[in-house]
Amino acid sequence: MRRIDQIEPFRVMQLLERAKELEAEGQKIIHMEIGEPDFPTPPSVIEAAKAALDSGDNYYTPSTGNPKLQKALSQWYLGEYGVAVAPERILITPGTSGAFSLIYATLLEAGESVLLSDPGYPCQRNFIRLAGGEPLNIPVSPETRYHLSAGLIEHHWKAGTRAAVVINPSNPTGTLIDDGELKKVADSCRRLGGYLISDEIYHGLTYGAKARCALEFSDDAIIVNGFSKRWAMTGWRIGWVIVPDSLIDACRRVMQNIFIAAPTLSQYAAIRALAASDEIEVMRRAYDERRSYLLSELPKLGFDIVVEPQGAFYIYANVSRLTDDSRSFCWQMLEKAGVAITPGEDFGSYRSDQHVRFSYATGLEDIREGVDRIRRYLSLATK
Amino acid sequence: MRRIDQIEPFRVMQLLERAKELEAEGQKIIHMEIGEPDFPTPPSVIEAAKAALDSGDNYYTPSTGNPKLQKALSQWYLGEYGVAVAPERILITPGTSGAFSLIYATLLEAGESVLLSDPGYPCQRNFIRLAGGEPLNIPVSPETRYHLSAGLIEHHWKAGTRAAVVINPSNPTGTLIDDGELKKVADSCRRLGGYLISDEIYHGLTYGAKARCALEFSDDAIIVNGFSKRWAMTGWRIGWVIVPDSLIDACRRVMQNIFIAAPTLSQYAAIRALAASDEIEVMRRAYDERRSYLLSELPKLGFDIVVEPQGAFYIYANVSRLTDDSRSFCWQMLEKAGVAITPGEDFGSYRSDQHVRFSYATGLEDIREGVDRIRRYLSLATK
Ligand SMILES: Cc1ncc(COP(=O)(O)O)c(C=O)c1O
Ligand SMILES: Cc1ncc(COP(=O)(O)O)c(C=O)c1O
Repeated sequence: MRRIDQIEPFRVMQLLERAKELEAEGQKIIHMEIGEPDFPTPPSVIEAAKAALDSGDNYYTPSTGNPKLQKALSQWYLGEYGVAVAPERILITPGTSGAFSLIYATLLEAGESVLLSDPGYPCQRNFIRLAGGEPLNIPVSPETRYHLSAGLIEHHWKAGTRAAVVINPSNPTGTLIDDGELKKVADSCRRLGGYLISDEIYHGLTYGAKARCALEFSDDAIIVNGFSKRWAMTGWRIGWVIVPDSLIDACRRVMQNIFIAAPTLSQYAAIRALAASDEIEVMRRAYDERRSYLLSELPKLGFDIVVEPQGAFYIYANVSRLTDDSRSFCWQMLEKAGVAITPGEDFGSYRSDQHVRFSYATGLEDIREGVDRIRRYLSLATK
Repeated sequence: MRRIDQIEPFRVMQLLERAKELEAEGQKIIHMEIGEPDFPTPPSVIEAAKAALDSGDNYYTPSTGNPKLQKALSQWYLGEYGVAVAPERILITPGTSGAFSLIYATLLEAGESVLLSDPGYPCQRNFIRLAGGEPLNIPVSPETRYHLSAGLIEHHWKAGTRAAVVINPSNPTGTLIDDGELKKVADSCRRLGGYLISDEIYHGLTYGAKARCALEFSDDAIIVNGFSKRWAMTGWRIGWVIVPDSLIDACRRVMQNIFIAAPTLSQYAAIRALAASDEIEVMRRAYDERRSYLLSELPKLGFDIVVEPQGAFYIYANVSRLTDDSRSFCWQMLEKAGVAITPGEDFGSYRSDQHVRFSYATGLEDIREGVDRIRRYLSLATK
């Protein structure tokens, strides 16, 4: 099979298309399938972008990023996690997505492998395949809070494995890895001679808990993060990756060639975003309220939430009590109840037909209506 | 050798760093090494970006782009070249750079090859290597106006070759491919069962000639273009690629995974840019004036311009009369005359030590001073 044929589409896109058709026919659809903040970018960031537009600087930045943003992030790491990171280790990328292209291009040789959790962020395995590598999808369960553990890593690591990826909080499960386990995971990766890649894009979107940066436990962890989620800046395509000194040179060469640079205006906007803590706290509180509501309502409807999700804006629910085919279940829910949620198959294959993902990046009123609709649909369906 | 070790840095970057050091010491350096418009983005585009900021839409666009931009480009192709291109064949990418990542991820299997011209745009060979492919660098000379010809393509195509790239007008030579030859090149690629990839990023920056779109000759050519050069929008990171129907699906899957989408704001700005023809014409005229000046002065100084460059903002000069080592020549020129130009080695290896590239994306006054400085330096050096 050619590599390109191994790249799966997001299955939820078909569902989304159908949702749009229904909307075009005049139906109201409740969107709980989308992994994107419903909030617009904070006003202070918009103003900073306008000021940057007026400055006339729309040129390429250095490939590794605007040094002012690198420096601002370095200071931010000190305040946020108490870790000192030299600015030149912080490479600015076109989205966190760009960071992944960069890292795998830099680390992987054809046939080398990377450990991923199943379920996990679906693009990961495709980034790895496109870099000529092999994704090793390791089933994870409530036992490890749906995360890779040191034990799993030690067990599945093989010759040619170069890294393990932890997404913390996780997409799709919203769960945090246990702090002690994160340290052990970092130790294992180092001992095995590879890298821990910590995807921290949902940091800051946590409720009653704080996610730890992998750099608190290991100097040579690779940290991937970005402005899309916490700062509600998806369309700006701006992220970063922190690499050990030994990788800076190779990364710079790759960046010069494949990106030239990240978007200039977004880099200015990002500098301002780092100071927008009040504005982002408002969003976090809103997510938290929606989350509490769903955590209390969904189980009553038959959705089992086995590990409490303390982060991101996702709830990964076991639907075994309701169906043994989560895909058809989601399609039915869309067609019959007008509620869009994502079937487990988009995040892996391990017990995926027993799971669905709810996103609460949707207003509370819509979420309430969604729950009502699901309740009505299920009570009819089971009568 | 690991793949990453085959990715060369831009050598001119070291020269640029040294230039910055000299500037920090108070020296004025004349920059004729940089391949980036010196003009800021046109005011009408800046205004459109501000309006888009006010609209509150900073969300991800569909992976293949904002449909309005796809449509605007489709109409633009009709006006500009008289070719009809369905909007859904026009995929919006983060820079032309993104278009190359996309295309090679989609087309190449490990070990498959792509024909490139030597000299040529240096990132090309690295994009191909990072996709696991093999760049076949074909020496080109004044005979073919420094372009791949149908003859060269037929001669060098081998089992597993998937495409040939034409950069028209060329970076670094500024030369246009002969129209008839472009048609033959397209025919050859089709006959050989592969793709012609036409990099048209310097279209519109032509002087006394017009570059033809490869789609005028072949429906299944892959066209790569972007807003960086003609529209002076480098920092916006926005480009596009036109693919045959048969590739749309595969490209969409790759885009969903590796980009999610191109920058939203830049897409709005790009829609406006397509209507900014007066503003871009002012820039084109300025380039043309600088070009005429250099074309008349450089030969007097010993720089041989064998094929008249009719496009981009580059002049590729043979320096055999002045040196047999263009790299040291460029370094000397920087240190002794304070003029930065790019040595041939950044664009390939074929007769690279006999060539340098001048960029005239620098104000005419500076260019005049640069020429004066070079004159003085060379007359001293040869005394
Ligand atoms: C876990 C995770 N990582 C990375 C990304 C990529 O985001 P971006 O490229 O917008 O930074 C996403 C987006 O959904 C995500 O869920
Ligand atoms: C020939 C050629 N193609 C493509 C590019 C990439 O430009 P961008 O990614 O800014 O669209 C460049 C930039 O210098 C170029 O010279």
